[in-house]
Amino acid sequence: MSITVQTIIDRLVAPVGPLEQTVDTLKSGSPGKPVRKVAVAMTATYAIIKQAIDTGADLIIAHEPTFYNHLDETNWLEGDPVYEKKRELIESTGIAIFRLHDYIHEYEPDGILSGMLLELGWDAYADAEHLHLLTLPSDEAETVGAVAAHLKQRLGIDSLLLAGDPAMAVSRIGFLPGAPGGRTQMDVLRQGGIDLLIAGETNEWETNEYVRDAVDMGFAKALLVTGHQKSEEAGMATVAAMLREQFPELLVDVIASPPAVRRA
Amino acid sequence: MSITVQTIIDRLVAPVGPLEQTVDTLKSGSPGKPVRKVAVAMTATYAIIKQAIDTGADLIIAHEPTFYNHLDETNWLEGDPVYEKKRELIESTGIAIFRLHDYIHEYEPDGILSGMLLELGWDAYADAEHLHLLTLPSDEAETVGAVAAHLKQRLGIDSLLLAGDPAMAVSRIGFLPGAPGGRTQMDVLRQGGIDLLIAGETNEWETNEYVRDAVDMGFAKALLVTGHQKSEEAGMATVAAMLREQFPELLVDVIASPPAVRRA
Repeated sequence: MSITVQTIIDRLVAPVGPLEQTVDTLKSGSPGKPVRKVAVAMTATYAIIKQAIDTGADLIIAHEPTFYNHLDETNWLEGDPVYEKKRELIESTGIAIFRLHDYIHEYEPDGILSGMLLELGWDAYADAEHLHLLTLPSDEAETVGAVAAHLKQRLGIDSLLLAGDPAMAVSRIGFLPGAPGGRTQMDVLRQGGIDLLIAGETNEWETNEYVRDAVDMGFAKALLVTGHQKSEEAGMATVAAMLREQFPELLVDVIASPPAVRRA
Repeated sequence: MSITVQTIIDRLVAPVGPLEQTVDTLKSGSPGKPVRKVAVAMTATYAIIKQAIDTGADLIIAHEPTFYNHLDETNWLEGDPVYEKKRELIESTGIAIFRLHDYIHEYEPDGILSGMLLELGWDAYADAEHLHLLTLPSDEAETVGAVAAHLKQRLGIDSLLLAGDPAMAVSRIGFLPGAPGGRTQMDVLRQGGIDLLIAGETNEWETNEYVRDAVDMGFAKALLVTGHQKSEEAGMATVAAMLREQFPELLVDVIASPPAVRRA
């Protein structure tokens, strides 16, 4: 029995069961299309779609939207040259794109979070019940600055954003990849004992200002913002591992990319 | 007749008339309180509130929320040590805080935008009807990199985010301080002839990815992200100027601050 786009989608959905409301839909392509090769990526960018096609992929599994908004609404983009060129590439090649955002975050454990913990070498430090809460071993005296250096090295980012004192000692970390919203971020940071919040992306007027005030009040709190893409991208490798295990004959590539923006 | 908090609010509201729905409310203090000194700031941070009190201000006019969310909802913050300490400072001193966000953006012209154009020395370049669209003089050959350097120098920021080619020639700029949302940002950037979008704050999966794709497709487009605070802060100086002109006896301070986060 050949593997189709729908076979893969069923496997991705299975750990959660179908969600009624979700952005995880087939953005392009046909569910019945046979799949020999899958490309897994953070975002189906124009360059990654081309690379996937050039390397023989039939299906891209992407965590982020294809058309620059969470719901992948496209009415407002009609006639836009960037949108039209991307759509043309997708339609002319028939490449399938499935978004895997809500489901993977609903996996037990969250597939992005558990993949990121592996990437950072922190899986042993996570609380059993709350993987996003980490306790560093007491013999590893860490500072905010040392954690920042670790993040830069492991995630391949040139710089990140910091609020607080880089020399502050860190024992308990709240780790929230992506952009779960200011309240979620602040709810974690304000927990007793959490010294440092590592966030993917924040709104400046929310979490950033909270931490600024906390620090100015003398509370021992700090914030590191890594950028959204690099805070989640490596987590998508868990999807590749899952598919390789389930479908040994399937070829699975993971395509990483630099962030869309760089320091200037 | 003495100037009160309400006198000032009436003056700030007057150019627009009362809005039915607005976040521009009196966050603390009493409308009837006499005001001899006003402090104007981007955000009423803990440090800025203290500085305002120490320098004798009765009223802070701030562009951003006081309690880390757009609507300044506080139920979810009850018992939070940062919130409680800030509230205690505010209540114990009786300092008045008025948010001036929606009104100033509704001024004709937008007070933030016109203030930022002055700060950047770009007021002569703005389209008469659409101040956020700029045409650089043809004898000033500019590149994205040169514009970035100008922004850094004028706004006092150490680095900003770039998508696109720093060597690309720039003639027409879309300038959107703050965080007006991805669609607004993309709507400006995709206009024919706009080479460069300067944004305060973006969502990574929206405007950043749009520009990444545009550049990878060969379109001559670029994006510079300055950070939200520094993209608007100097615009609040127009409020100070307006109040000084209207109330010559009023003392008006403008309090700037570094961004809440810095590069690490």
